[in-house]
Amino acid sequence: MSNVDPRRMADAIRILTVDACERVGEGHWGTPLGAAEIATALFTRHLKFNPADPTWFDRDRFVQSNGHGSMLLYSLLYLTGYAHMPLSALKTFREIGSICQGHPEREPEAGIEITTGMLGQGIANATGMAVAEAYLNHLLGPGIVDHRTWALVGDGCLQEGIAHEVISLAGHLRLGKMTWLWDDNLIQDDGAVGQSISEDMDARFRAAGWHVQRVEGHDMEAVSAAIEAAKSDPRPSLIACRTMIGRGVPGLEGTRSAHAGKLTRENTEAARARLGWEGEAFAIPEDILSAWRMAGRRAEAAHAEWTARVASLPAEKRALVDRVSKGDLPEGWRDTLQSYAREAAGRSEFGIFFSGEIVDRLAAAIPELLSGAPDLEAATKHKRSLSAFTAEDRGGRYLHYGVREHAMGAMLNGMVAHSGVVPVGVTYLVFADYERPTFRLAAMMGLPTVFVFSHDSIGIGRNGPTHQPVEILASLRAIPNMLVFRPADGVEAAEAWELALANRSGPSCLVFPRQKLGPARDAASTGENRSARGAYVLAEATGGERRATLLATGTEVAIALAARATLEAEGVPTAVVSMPCWALFEQQDDAYRNDVLGAGTVRVAVEAAVRLGWDRYIGPDGGFVGMSGFGTSGPDDALYDHFGITAEAVASEVRERL
Amino acid sequence: MSNVDPRRMADAIRILTVDACERVGEGHWGTPLGAAEIATALFTRHLKFNPADPTWFDRDRFVQSNGHGSMLLYSLLYLTGYAHMPLSALKTFREIGSICQGHPEREPEAGIEITTGMLGQGIANATGMAVAEAYLNHLLGPGIVDHRTWALVGDGCLQEGIAHEVISLAGHLRLGKMTWLWDDNLIQDDGAVGQSISEDMDARFRAAGWHVQRVEGHDMEAVSAAIEAAKSDPRPSLIACRTMIGRGVPGLEGTRSAHAGKLTRENTEAARARLGWEGEAFAIPEDILSAWRMAGRRAEAAHAEWTARVASLPAEKRALVDRVSKGDLPEGWRDTLQSYAREAAGRSEFGIFFSGEIVDRLAAAIPELLSGAPDLEAATKHKRSLSAFTAEDRGGRYLHYGVREHAMGAMLNGMVAHSGVVPVGVTYLVFADYERPTFRLAAMMGLPTVFVFSHDSIGIGRNGPTHQPVEILASLRAIPNMLVFRPADGVEAAEAWELALANRSGPSCLVFPRQKLGPARDAASTGENRSARGAYVLAEATGGERRATLLATGTEVAIALAARATLEAEGVPTAVVSMPCWALFEQQDDAYRNDVLGAGTVRVAVEAAVRLGWDRYIGPDGGFVGMSGFGTSGPDDALYDHFGITAEAVASEVRERL
Repeated sequence: MSNVDPRRMADAIRILTVDACERVGEGHWGTPLGAAEIATALFTRHLKFNPADPTWFDRDRFVQSNGHGSMLLYSLLYLTGYAHMPLSALKTFREIGSICQGHPEREPEAGIEITTGMLGQGIANATGMAVAEAYLNHLLGPGIVDHRTWALVGDGCLQEGIAHEVISLAGHLRLGKMTWLWDDNLIQDDGAVGQSISEDMDARFRAAGWHVQRVEGHDMEAVSAAIEAAKSDPRPSLIACRTMIGRGVPGLEGTRSAHAGKLTRENTEAARARLGWEGEAFAIPEDILSAWRMAGRRAEAAHAEWTARVASLPAEKRALVDRVSKGDLPEGWRDTLQSYAREAAGRSEFGIFFSGEIVDRLAAAIPELLSGAPDLEAATKHKRSLSAFTAEDRGGRYLHYGVREHAMGAMLNGMVAHSGVVPVGVTYLVFADYERPTFRLAAMMGLPTVFVFSHDSIGIGRNGPTHQPVEILASLRAIPNMLVFRPADGVEAAEAWELALANRSGPSCLVFPRQKLGPARDAASTGENRSARGAYVLAEATGGERRATLLATGTEVAIALAARATLEAEGVPTAVVSMPCWALFEQQDDAYRNDVLGAGTVRVAVEAAVRLGWDRYIGPDGGFVGMSGFGTSGPDDALYDHFGITAEAVASEVRERL
Repeated sequence: MSNVDPRRMADAIRILTVDACERVGEGHWGTPLGAAEIATALFTRHLKFNPADPTWFDRDRFVQSNGHGSMLLYSLLYLTGYAHMPLSALKTFREIGSICQGHPEREPEAGIEITTGMLGQGIANATGMAVAEAYLNHLLGPGIVDHRTWALVGDGCLQEGIAHEVISLAGHLRLGKMTWLWDDNLIQDDGAVGQSISEDMDARFRAAGWHVQRVEGHDMEAVSAAIEAAKSDPRPSLIACRTMIGRGVPGLEGTRSAHAGKLTRENTEAARARLGWEGEAFAIPEDILSAWRMAGRRAEAAHAEWTARVASLPAEKRALVDRVSKGDLPEGWRDTLQSYAREAAGRSEFGIFFSGEIVDRLAAAIPELLSGAPDLEAATKHKRSLSAFTAEDRGGRYLHYGVREHAMGAMLNGMVAHSGVVPVGVTYLVFADYERPTFRLAAMMGLPTVFVFSHDSIGIGRNGPTHQPVEILASLRAIPNMLVFRPADGVEAAEAWELALANRSGPSCLVFPRQKLGPARDAASTGENRSARGAYVLAEATGGERRATLLATGTEVAIALAARATLEAEGVPTAVVSMPCWALFEQQDDAYRNDVLGAGTVRVAVEAAVRLGWDRYIGPDGGFVGMSGFGTSGPDDALYDHFGITAEAVASEVRERL
C-alpha cells in the first residue's frame, strides 16, 4: 500500500462523480458518493483484477448491481488504470456513444463485466457467475479458475423479486465465494426506505443460509475486516454497510435529493470545500492517482503465477483451459448436431424431446455445458444423463433452479458473461414472461445466451389457457438482436441448435412443443443447414407453376403439408415454406425473400399463435390461420379443431383467394 | 356443525378429485388430497361465504394460489352448493369449455375468485384483495367491508420472486386480515423440495413481520386453532401446514408421482379401500353432502345482517356502497375527462404529466381510486394530492410499492378482482417486462385493470438503453383482449383514460413519454372521443387529393405533422393519421379502415420503436421510420436525430415512393 490516505482515494471517486454529473447536468451521484469507501476498500485491498489484462480468465468478477450509480464503476476503472477507460471517457458520461453510458453497458475490455440498471439483474448475474466459477473450478482443477464474485447492491435491487430468488438459491447452493456489499443508505427514489419496507433484512439473508455482517460503511477498516471474514466463511456473504447517500455534498447528503438530484457548480464547489479538495474539474492529484494505479497492479504477481501455472499444465488440460477461456466449442460439435440431424430425419417425437436428446449429445461433447430447469425436469427433458450441481457436488451439470424462472434467465446471462461455460436453461414458453427482462439484456449485451422453451402453444392440452402461450412468440420476435427459432422437426431442431451455438453476438430462443413434432425433413436434406436462411421452401409446388404458398413454423408445418396435399390433389400447385427464424430471414436479400414467399401467389400463414407480425409475409391479401384470443383446456388435437387451426382451414383460405 | 365426521368430509374432496382425474386421464391430484383437511377446516368453520350469493360484496376472498390443484377448489364449490358448480361440471374437468379448466379460470358466480396457475400470482392477487378490503373498510365505515382474505399456497409459489415482493410488502403494510395456508408437503415437480431450497421459511416470513405458526396439516383441530390465532393477530399470518402430498392413494402418496402422476382405476379403487369409501364414481353419501351443504349455509345469518345493515345506512352512504359494490363509476366521471380534454387541448407538457393530472382529477371525483408506483413517485407524477396508504392510515390512497413491479401488477389485478376500488399503477415502460405476466392474466380474466407507463422510448434520454424501451409496445400489442394506448397529447390522454375506464371486459395499458408531448388536437376537436375508433385522420391532406398518409402514435405524431407540413409545402397533399390504439382500430369496418389508412396513397409509419406489426398498416410498399435496435445515452432530441427518427426522414421515405 502507498502512504496516501485511503480516505483521499475514496474522495477521488466523489470528485470524479460530481464533476461528471455537473458537466452533463444529470446522473445518479448519491451511490458513488455513499459507497466510495466500500468500493475503495474492495478495489484497493481485496479484488483480484489486472487492468493490463482486463479479461483475465481468473479475475474476480465485480458487478455493480445498482447500475444507476455508474459513475462509481467508471471512476474505479479509470483510477485503477483500464486503458479503455481514460479520463476523457468520463468527460463524455451520458453522451451518445460514450463508453460511460447512463447505466453500465457491458464492455469487458474496459472492466464493465455486465450491463446493469434494471434493478435486481446484477445480483442474479453475479449468482450465475459464481456458479460458473464453482463448476469451472471443479472442471479445470486447482488454481485455474479460483476467484471470488462481488456485487454492490442497493435497496432497490433487494426489493425486487428476483433478488429473493437468488438469495434463496445462492444460500442453498452455498456459493461461498460470492459476497454482496449492500449500500444500506436508508434512502430510495421515493425518499425514506421505510415508506415501503420494514423487513429485517439481516434475518432474511440468515434464513436463506447466508453469512451476514453489519458495518459502518464509511469505515474502510471495518469494511475490509468484514470482507476478510466473508472470504473465510463457507456461505455466501452479505455485508450490510450503513452509509450516507451522497456523502460529501453539503446540504444534499443523506437526503432524497442525493439520489439523482441536479448538481450545480455551487454544489460541486461546496463538495470540494468540504473534502478539502483542490484543482480543476476531473483533476486527480498525482499522489492519489498513483496510489490508485498501484492498487490496480496488486494482482500482477498473481496474474503472472496464474499464467505460468496454466503454461505448465499437461497439454490436454492446457488445451481445455485455452479453449474454454476463449469461449470456443470443442472440435466436432457441429458433427454431433449433423449426425443427430441425420438420425432425427423422418422421425416424429414429442417436440421438446428432440432438444433434450440434442442437449444430451452436446453435453457428452462439451464438458462445460450446464443444463437446468425451474422445477420442470420431467416435462422439459433436459436432465437425462446429467447429475445435479449441488452444494456438495460441484461436478454436477444440471441445476435444479426451483420455481425461479427469472433467476434462471439472469443466471444464464451471468454464466455466459463469466465465460467458460455453455449454460442451457429450459422452461415452458408461457413462463418466458417471468424470464423476459433477461432476454432484452442478453440481446442488448450481445451475449450468446440460449433460452430453451417447451409447451409452446395450445398443443399443451388440458392444462388450459394459463399454460397455453398465444402471444409469446410475437413478443419474443419483437426483441432486437435475438434469434427466435421454432423448428418443425428434429432436423430443424439440430439446425437451430447449431445456429444458436454459432451465434456469438446475441441470444437465441429455441421454442418447442410438448406434442408430437415432425417429420418435416428427410435424411437427404440434412447436408446443408437450411434453417440458416431463416425460411426456405420445404416442399415446392408440383404439377405446374406455384399458385399458393403456405407459410408455417413448428408444429403447424405438418398442417401446412397436409393442406398442400389437399390443394395439389385439387390441382393447385402449392408450396410449403418453413420459417423457423424470422430474424435470419430478414437478413436475406430481396430476391431470396421474394422467391421463398412466392410473390404473386396466394399466401396463407398458419401458426398456433396471434397474427402480429405475419402481415409482413402474407401481404395485404394473404390469409392467416391461428389464434385470436386465449385457449382452453382440452386434448391437443381437439383444441386445434376447436380453434380452427386445421389443414382444411388453411386450404379453404387458399381457395377463397384463388 | 353436523355430526358427520369431518374427516369423511375431507375425504369427499379426495374422492371427487381422484374420480375426476381418473376419468380424464390426468390432473394434479396431489394437492387436493394433501390439503383436503386444511380446506375442510377453513371452509366448514371459518370462511365467510354464501353460495346462494356468490358475489356477496363482504364475503371472504379465498384464492387457491397453487392453481394446478384446481380439483380442490372445484370440489369445495360443488360440495358447499354453488349453483354454477354442479356435479356435472366436475365430470367435465379439463374438457373444452368446461368451467372446471385445468387451472382455475376466474368465474365469481361459481366461486372462482381469480385465475391461478402461473405460480406466485395468486398470493399477490390476494395481497391486492387485502389492500382493497382495508381501504374499503375505511371508506365505507364499520361493518360494510370487513372480511378476511385467504390463500392456499404451495412450495412453488413461495419460490417465485413475486412471493417475496408481496411477503415483504404485506408485512410492511400490516395486512392482518390476510392469512396464507401453506401446503408444506416437501414435494415439488422435480421431487424433494430439498433439491432446490434449504431456506428457513418460517424465519423468512418472521423477518418480514408476519405471524407464523406451524401445524400438522391433516389435523383439522390444529389447523382450525391456528386459523383462530391468525384471526386475532394484527399481522398477516402464515400457517405452515405439514402435509403428505396425495394422501389417501396407497403407493403414491408422499411421492413425486403424487404431484400429477397418472391415476388408474386400480389407484382410485385402492384409495376407496384405504378411505373406507363406497359407492359409484363421483357419488358423495347423502349425509356427507348434507354436512357440506350446511357448511355452505353457515354465513346465511351474517349475510342477512349485512344486507339489513346496508339497507339501514343513510341514503348517501347506501348509494355509495351500492355504486362501488357494482363497480360503477360516479356520475360525471366522463365530464371530468371531457373538461380536462378541453383544457389540455393545444398544450404541450411532459407526457406523463397529462396522465398524472388526469388521475388527480379522477381521484377527486372517484373516492375509490387508489394510485401508486414502484418507487418512482417523482418521475411518474401520479401521487400529487394523495397521501400514502400505510399500516397506520388506511385512508391513504397512494401505495408506495417499493421496487416491486411484479407485485404491483398482480396486486392491481387482485384489487380489480376484489371489486369496489379503481386501482392505478404506474411505472416506466421498460419495467413492463417485470410486470408482464400480470397483463396476460388480466386479459385472460377480462379484468379491467389499468396499467400506466411513462418513459416510453429513447426519448427518456441519458439514462441509456437499459431504460429505453424499443420492443415493448409491440410486445404489449401482442396480448389479446388488451387495449394499448399511446396518446399523442393531453386530449388523446383524456380520451384514452375514458376508454380504459369504460372498458369493463379487459385491461388497458396507457403509455406516455417522459419528454414533451403534444399539442395534436385543438379544443374544437374535443366533443367526440376520436380515439374510440383506434385511429383517425388527425390532419387531412389539403391542396388536392391525398397522395401520402403518415401513420404515427404518441410523441411521433408531432414528427408526422412536421413532415406533412414539409410535404404539403412541396405540393404533396398529405394526411396524418394518429393511431393511439391498434386494437380498437381492428374493430372498425373495412371501409373506415381503408379510408383512414389511405389505400392507394403512399404510406409511411413513424414510431420510436421496432417495426413489428406496422407492416399490416403500411402494406408491402410502405415505409417505416423507427428503431431497429437498442438505444444509447444522450439528450432526447439528439437521440431522435441520431437514430434518424425525424420529420425529414419521414418526408424522404414518402418522396422515394411518390
